[in-house]
Amino acid sequence: MNKKKITELNQWLKENGAEAGYISNPATIAYFSGFKSDPHERVLALFLSPDKDPFLFAPALEVEEAKNSGWPYDVIGYLDSENPWDKISQELTSRYDLNRLALEKNDLSVERYEALKTRLPQTDFSLDMTPMIQTMQLTKTASEIDTLLEAGSWADVAFEIGFAAIKEGVSEAAIVAEIEYELKKRGVSHMSFDTTVLAGDNAASPHGVPGDRRITANELVLFDLGVIWKGYCSDATRTVAYHEPTALQRKIYDIVLEAEQTAQAAVKPGITAGELDQIARDVITSYGYGEYFNHRLGHGIGTTVHEFPSLITGNDLVIQEGMCFSIEPGIYIPDQVGVRIEDCVYVTKDGCVPFTKTTKELQILS
Amino acid sequence: MNKKKITELNQWLKENGAEAGYISNPATIAYFSGFKSDPHERVLALFLSPDKDPFLFAPALEVEEAKNSGWPYDVIGYLDSENPWDKISQELTSRYDLNRLALEKNDLSVERYEALKTRLPQTDFSLDMTPMIQTMQLTKTASEIDTLLEAGSWADVAFEIGFAAIKEGVSEAAIVAEIEYELKKRGVSHMSFDTTVLAGDNAASPHGVPGDRRITANELVLFDLGVIWKGYCSDATRTVAYHEPTALQRKIYDIVLEAEQTAQAAVKPGITAGELDQIARDVITSYGYGEYFNHRLGHGIGTTVHEFPSLITGNDLVIQEGMCFSIEPGIYIPDQVGVRIEDCVYVTKDGCVPFTKTTKELQILS
Repeated sequence: MNKKKITELNQWLKENGAEAGYISNPATIAYFSGFKSDPHERVLALFLSPDKDPFLFAPALEVEEAKNSGWPYDVIGYLDSENPWDKISQELTSRYDLNRLALEKNDLSVERYEALKTRLPQTDFSLDMTPMIQTMQLTKTASEIDTLLEAGSWADVAFEIGFAAIKEGVSEAAIVAEIEYELKKRGVSHMSFDTTVLAGDNAASPHGVPGDRRITANELVLFDLGVIWKGYCSDATRTVAYHEPTALQRKIYDIVLEAEQTAQAAVKPGITAGELDQIARDVITSYGYGEYFNHRLGHGIGTTVHEFPSLITGNDLVIQEGMCFSIEPGIYIPDQVGVRIEDCVYVTKDGCVPFTKTTKELQILS
Repeated sequence: MNKKKITELNQWLKENGAEAGYISNPATIAYFSGFKSDPHERVLALFLSPDKDPFLFAPALEVEEAKNSGWPYDVIGYLDSENPWDKISQELTSRYDLNRLALEKNDLSVERYEALKTRLPQTDFSLDMTPMIQTMQLTKTASEIDTLLEAGSWADVAFEIGFAAIKEGVSEAAIVAEIEYELKKRGVSHMSFDTTVLAGDNAASPHGVPGDRRITANELVLFDLGVIWKGYCSDATRTVAYHEPTALQRKIYDIVLEAEQTAQAAVKPGITAGELDQIARDVITSYGYGEYFNHRLGHGIGTTVHEFPSLITGNDLVIQEGMCFSIEPGIYIPDQVGVRIEDCVYVTKDGCVPFTKTTKELQILS
């Protein structure tokens, strides 16, 4: 349980006149309560209140595990044969003098919102906790950064496994299988997203899917991967050459690397998210490839693999110490070449430190 | 693209006075459009209309892939620097004479709903397509059943790999790694949920997580797994013994098997979902273990691993030919023994056929 963060959110709820807040996203529930669970279509909820004790609401199946997770407050269970919304609204009215219930609006479905609204017709649901939670999660504590560094070092291990698996004729999918197998054997049970290994022209699609495409000499291979470690994510990209790269491949690689390194060197408290995007974009544009960098520079990372801040031109958010995000410029020329280089970093008082340490000099494997 | 299903939903929209419907769930978008994509926090949407052409709305990054997926209508893209809700509301008002826009309320977040409502203040959003879509997906076509059979046969392959990996001292996590590695090498890129391998007392937790626990002689090992194959899911559970089971293990296994087989034999058009649950529950209760069967009998399966119908006491839904669902009774006696046996089946005109064929006689491995 993260007592400090619960207190901080409760304080905000009080200031905004809410007697309680309903956390619905399992990742956010884990962030505050320490209880990690994927309820699938069943209902898992955390209710916080500035004046009363919080409680977890969970499928009956999960109640024991929730209690054993270290959560010191009530865990209310419901059976598949019970209506969870009847039970939740009864709990809420019996525990809290409820006029205003804040929601996590970027997660809660309209169906669930309406189920609650029907049962609590006098309650005001206008307050959205999402921006406050995103702001709270924007800067990480020292202990969160330690865990993110551990998650990053597993991504470095994954690169090592993946680079070693590259051989003439091996398929992208086989390299993915090898990476995940070796990690699972070492105790990493979940990747933070589908491991991506793309060869040659496949890498020129920024959201390509690994398949039967086999590696051949003189092409680039793009690895985008990350793990979930103790509830925190890593995410990194490296592009390597299998045998000597062509002149175009080398040229594009060098431009992306320059963009990545220039942006990374510019990170410090006080610069804006939009300025960082622009710095990387300017490098790529100066070489005439601006149109082939068709996504934002980066995204925040933490308990989820994509969170705030969004590094994109126009975002005036001021970077602060403790923020954690990706820097991942790329150039994708359809049917020709695709290169992306990515590290996630945390912001220090005068710069930043990457969570992943795998070299960014072009690796030429054989 | 599933033209027939689009027409069916459009007909329903027309009957309910909606000029358009907004499909927001990526699995449902794939079901209707044929375009499979996980947009993460970006916006992917399918808009259907009874009177006008439908269109897909996608991140700019995905537009090419959407067009190449066989979708014959417009694909509207948006850049990370654009507001998708401005663009969607402009598209909607320019294309449709919009008074009522139906939503997929079990998927759409309150945040997105409010973003749309703010921009379309005159539009009525009361109509929920969820029940209609769930009903449409409740009975599967012959071609969907063929794909589900293929997905099921991959689950059988997975059991075979998993059973072969059981050895003295091997960990649950290592068996999971082995299963997924072998499947990935054979072209199965995604499991339909986290592969579960639980040994001994760990299996007595119905939602346990595989870890370092090592297999030892004379204990039961529970496998719950499934794959995604051509967009359709499998899901099956087998419990096997490593060396001779104890008398209690054997007894509990036999009771669960009797419950599973009795319920499976009772499946036919006309019976209700609740009656099937009760039939399995009665078997287990008759032996005095009713309190240890603490979940519903089963759930529907299709493009998602948990969908309608829900097989639970009190559900009066009448089973019909073409419905597909799991039958998965279990007995979990904490710290002692856990057994679950599960097949997903499809309903025929006078019975049902399982998608998975791995024997349910107790396997004693050594």
